[in-house]
Amino acid sequence: MNGVKKMKLLEEKIQNEGIAIGSDILKVDMFLNHQMDVELLDEMGKEIKRLFENCGATKVVTIESSGIAIAVFAAKYLALPALFAKKAKHKNVGDDVYSAHSYSFTHGKEYTMIVSKKYISKDDKVLIIDDFLAGGNACNALLDILNQAGAEVVGIGIAIEKGFQPGGQALREKGYNLRSLAIIDSMKDGKITFRSDDC
Amino acid sequence: MNGVKKMKLLEEKIQNEGIAIGSDILKVDMFLNHQMDVELLDEMGKEIKRLFENCGATKVVTIESSGIAIAVFAAKYLALPALFAKKAKHKNVGDDVYSAHSYSFTHGKEYTMIVSKKYISKDDKVLIIDDFLAGGNACNALLDILNQAGAEVVGIGIAIEKGFQPGGQALREKGYNLRSLAIIDSMKDGKITFRSDDC
Repeated sequence: MNGVKKMKLLEEKIQNEGIAIGSDILKVDMFLNHQMDVELLDEMGKEIKRLFENCGATKVVTIESSGIAIAVFAAKYLALPALFAKKAKHKNVGDDVYSAHSYSFTHGKEYTMIVSKKYISKDDKVLIIDDFLAGGNACNALLDILNQAGAEVVGIGIAIEKGFQPGGQALREKGYNLRSLAIIDSMKDGKITFRSDDC
Repeated sequence: MNGVKKMKLLEEKIQNEGIAIGSDILKVDMFLNHQMDVELLDEMGKEIKRLFENCGATKVVTIESSGIAIAVFAAKYLALPALFAKKAKHKNVGDDVYSAHSYSFTHGKEYTMIVSKKYISKDDKVLIIDDFLAGGNACNALLDILNQAGAEVVGIGIAIEKGFQPGGQALREKGYNLRSLAIIDSMKDGKITFRSDDC
């Protein structure tokens, strides 16, 4: 994969199997977030290692559920422990967790994201991994939690970024080391256009 | 691992790091279902391959969220696609999914488990993977779904079975090829006793 700026294997999979609905919705549940192409996930783990192996991470942190499979392969190749933030079933979450509120456009509802205080601390240098980045709600909730813990965020690795939504640009402008394996610039009449540069 | 009847590495991890609360609750969120020891998960995937490589499975199916990490490593070593059943956010789930009701003792509430009809069929030979087996509620809901699809269940691989609860025995009596990497026979005063035989 060296020298390849974006992950062509993932782009081809999205192009060949993903289903673009209108200009905003991309269904990839045939290989990423319901059925899972494990060989592809394994390759994504290797690519995330290549992108982030020098960032000094001590822990990979993701969000349930669809981030988990990518995160554990990344963590395997980076030889790091992994942690997934949970989506709480209720708002009253107790004192032993850090929490943040978020909103899921997919499910059309608010939820509370939680991480046990036992498993994140100011000594952690965190590589965040998630399957999608669009508006950035989920990522921002996790950043809020990591900030409460005093942990340092040394990288953010995303499988598929919707480049036509504001989440990615906002995080880059804040200085985060955000790398996405595939960035979609637009979807129109079922045609998916990828960003070709390495930003 | 050949010749070892139970997965000693997992038993030692449970014994050294797991927290038994009373005679029923085992907390393993420090290495399995919140923070994840990825090296251990990878070894569990290899052990599941050893146990099930000759059962003719065409797909690994698990349940979100905690089953996913184990399932993808098992699927990697078995060179199979994986699929995770989702826990629906509402009861009205539509016609494009198989669904079954279940009850989570951990969360004290009912939920609806769903699998898209697109990703499971009568041609599938399924290896079920999950992190825990206790009363068997989640596993039975998934079996119900697979039965609706006409899929054949060729194996059930569980990380930690609570042998003092009825789920495992009931599944074995029904003839399922159930193998658990660790079976806990009892927990008392914080002491965890494992079953040593290979049933």
